[in-house]
Amino acid sequence: MDYLNLLAGRTERMQVNAIREILKVASQPGIISLAGGIPAPESFPLELIAELNGRVLAKYAADAFQYGLTEGFPPLRAALAERLSSRDIQTQPGDVLIASGSQGVLDAIGKALVSPGDRIAVESPTYLGALQAFTPYEPDYISLACDEGGLIPDSLEAALTRHATKFIYLVPNFQNPTGRTLSMNRRRAVASIIRKYGALLVEDDPYGDLRYEGTALPPLKSLAPDNVIYIGTLSKVFAPGLRLGYCVAPTAIRNWLVLVKQGVDLHTGTYSQALAAEYMAGGYLDRHLPRIIELYRPRKEAILDALARSFPDDFRWSQPEGGMFVWVEGPAGMDMQKLYADAVRYGVAYVPGQFFFVDQDAGRHTMRLNFTLADGPTLARAIDLLAEVIRHHG
Amino acid sequence: MDYLNLLAGRTERMQVNAIREILKVASQPGIISLAGGIPAPESFPLELIAELNGRVLAKYAADAFQYGLTEGFPPLRAALAERLSSRDIQTQPGDVLIASGSQGVLDAIGKALVSPGDRIAVESPTYLGALQAFTPYEPDYISLACDEGGLIPDSLEAALTRHATKFIYLVPNFQNPTGRTLSMNRRRAVASIIRKYGALLVEDDPYGDLRYEGTALPPLKSLAPDNVIYIGTLSKVFAPGLRLGYCVAPTAIRNWLVLVKQGVDLHTGTYSQALAAEYMAGGYLDRHLPRIIELYRPRKEAILDALARSFPDDFRWSQPEGGMFVWVEGPAGMDMQKLYADAVRYGVAYVPGQFFFVDQDAGRHTMRLNFTLADGPTLARAIDLLAEVIRHHG
Repeated sequence: MDYLNLLAGRTERMQVNAIREILKVASQPGIISLAGGIPAPESFPLELIAELNGRVLAKYAADAFQYGLTEGFPPLRAALAERLSSRDIQTQPGDVLIASGSQGVLDAIGKALVSPGDRIAVESPTYLGALQAFTPYEPDYISLACDEGGLIPDSLEAALTRHATKFIYLVPNFQNPTGRTLSMNRRRAVASIIRKYGALLVEDDPYGDLRYEGTALPPLKSLAPDNVIYIGTLSKVFAPGLRLGYCVAPTAIRNWLVLVKQGVDLHTGTYSQALAAEYMAGGYLDRHLPRIIELYRPRKEAILDALARSFPDDFRWSQPEGGMFVWVEGPAGMDMQKLYADAVRYGVAYVPGQFFFVDQDAGRHTMRLNFTLADGPTLARAIDLLAEVIRHHG
Repeated sequence: MDYLNLLAGRTERMQVNAIREILKVASQPGIISLAGGIPAPESFPLELIAELNGRVLAKYAADAFQYGLTEGFPPLRAALAERLSSRDIQTQPGDVLIASGSQGVLDAIGKALVSPGDRIAVESPTYLGALQAFTPYEPDYISLACDEGGLIPDSLEAALTRHATKFIYLVPNFQNPTGRTLSMNRRRAVASIIRKYGALLVEDDPYGDLRYEGTALPPLKSLAPDNVIYIGTLSKVFAPGLRLGYCVAPTAIRNWLVLVKQGVDLHTGTYSQALAAEYMAGGYLDRHLPRIIELYRPRKEAILDALARSFPDDFRWSQPEGGMFVWVEGPAGMDMQKLYADAVRYGVAYVPGQFFFVDQDAGRHTMRLNFTLADGPTLARAIDLLAEVIRHHG
């Protein structure tokens, strides 16, 4: 039979994109991958999980395996609310919605809010997974200008003046892909702008806990609570394979997200939520997090040292204080997607930066490098190899 | 700020429906609930899970907690392919797509295939969760006529002749809500019709394994493999809280579903999938399933006996050979939603049948009764109480 005529209009927008192919190549044996946004497997508290399994079975028994509320497993909602409140996001357990990864929150936001042609304002570059969540709902994107200090507030205000905007999507801490952090002054400015224009902002904060130096800055949610949906995840501080994300949204919006989520997956896995509830309520997260930070800090230093030592003078890169990524800009005219085939021959993979731009022509000379999966010496070798590729490339 | 103007067009279709309120009432203490479609907690192999936890940690270690493929955890795909092949669905591991519950498959199908105004043909009555998955993509529904033997094939052929139809949605085994099973002759007829019209059919089979008497019938997928997406779940034979569903679809469609699922949740929980892989590959499912059947068979007999003993002569009900539900039809003019408030006062909850009809006026005199959650004596008491409610009701 003919399947092609069965496709929905929206699906035609979801091209099998080149990045899937790039990530496939990156996972081949013998390749050092700086491509994925993947935590180190040694960051997972495996021995602890054996203990948590026992605690969950003893404490919740069949309840950990039964259908649950769409909103989430109550003990996990309570643990998250307590943690968020300690960071200036005053939250009751009932305010927290658990989702299947932060991707699940992004999908629900797109589905609940975006009609075809609605405008979403995004940083340039922005997180690719958010584009993949929103694009099926057929929005138009507005690119906001950014620099070393993150989003430039004037660019946001200009966009809101010019266009009716459904929401703004932002990763203020150690952004994916650039590793940059929105400065304190700019947080105040952005909060004041969204309040002034009655605009909704989606604050995606997967990396906030992974700070290796400097001081934590307050979330936008704490500066403009009525205007912000705050998204967090346990993928970077517990385990991504449990698929646990969450959000705190204004009540009206949360109710729509619950309705949407019910149609998508009924609820997020109960057993995973019970494990996470025990991990947090038992104080294990607070004890384990410093170990993750101690694991990643030297890796970040190793990649930055290697870049400084090996990369050509006409390259520039970000100086992340946390997170998982360094953003590299080559000289104008360079094409990092063309370089990619050579890099793989040398045994190194990365993500060409163009994929993170709504207008992909904008980022051809950029690349995103991950520094959490490989250890320091491997990162140094990868950067040396990449430098060699660059020197020998066309 | 004003949130209402942020709503997408599709979200306005997703009304907070009365059924959520009904299920809330049903879960109050002191109420015997025949309302949910919920497995008995004593059907979960809890002791075995403690052992499976250990096996998963030993065998997969960090891999069970890492990001995984959108398509699913390879050992689980392999175990499911083997099981499906033993039931006449010739399947390779690569043909299986794992999703976050069968709800996740239904959402992906709706999202990949349905443009606003596309037609979906459904049994009358049909599974409410499927309507909740599809409706956000703004289809029009065509109701197909059904009787004791399930879908009436002539009704399907008439619909396909009259309307361009995106797909047909069917639950052929122990249907939710009616408990009815599509007969063998009708399976052949339906397979022949969809082949003749080049139509796509979604075969949702959550209850096929829960057969308490009679002989299993071949899935439609085995009779018209190119025209059928087969959906299964581990929610009824392992644990719903792990949120594991799956489908086997024609390759072109599977590829679109993968693309869609990537945007929705990246992938289904790895740890849950690893537990299920060990449950199946270790032969535990085949050993545990008979215990679930032995648990539910007497419950089914108890509810049918009680209905025969207590319910008024002008009531009729289905005679399910498996699954979780009995469907009751009262005399014309009776309103089971009006009866509901009285029933709750007597301490019994059910789902008024109208919610399972696309045109809700069609089912006012019907109700769906679950017989898997409560034990036999409790079911008998609940039916006696319901009979009393009916006798005393206006």
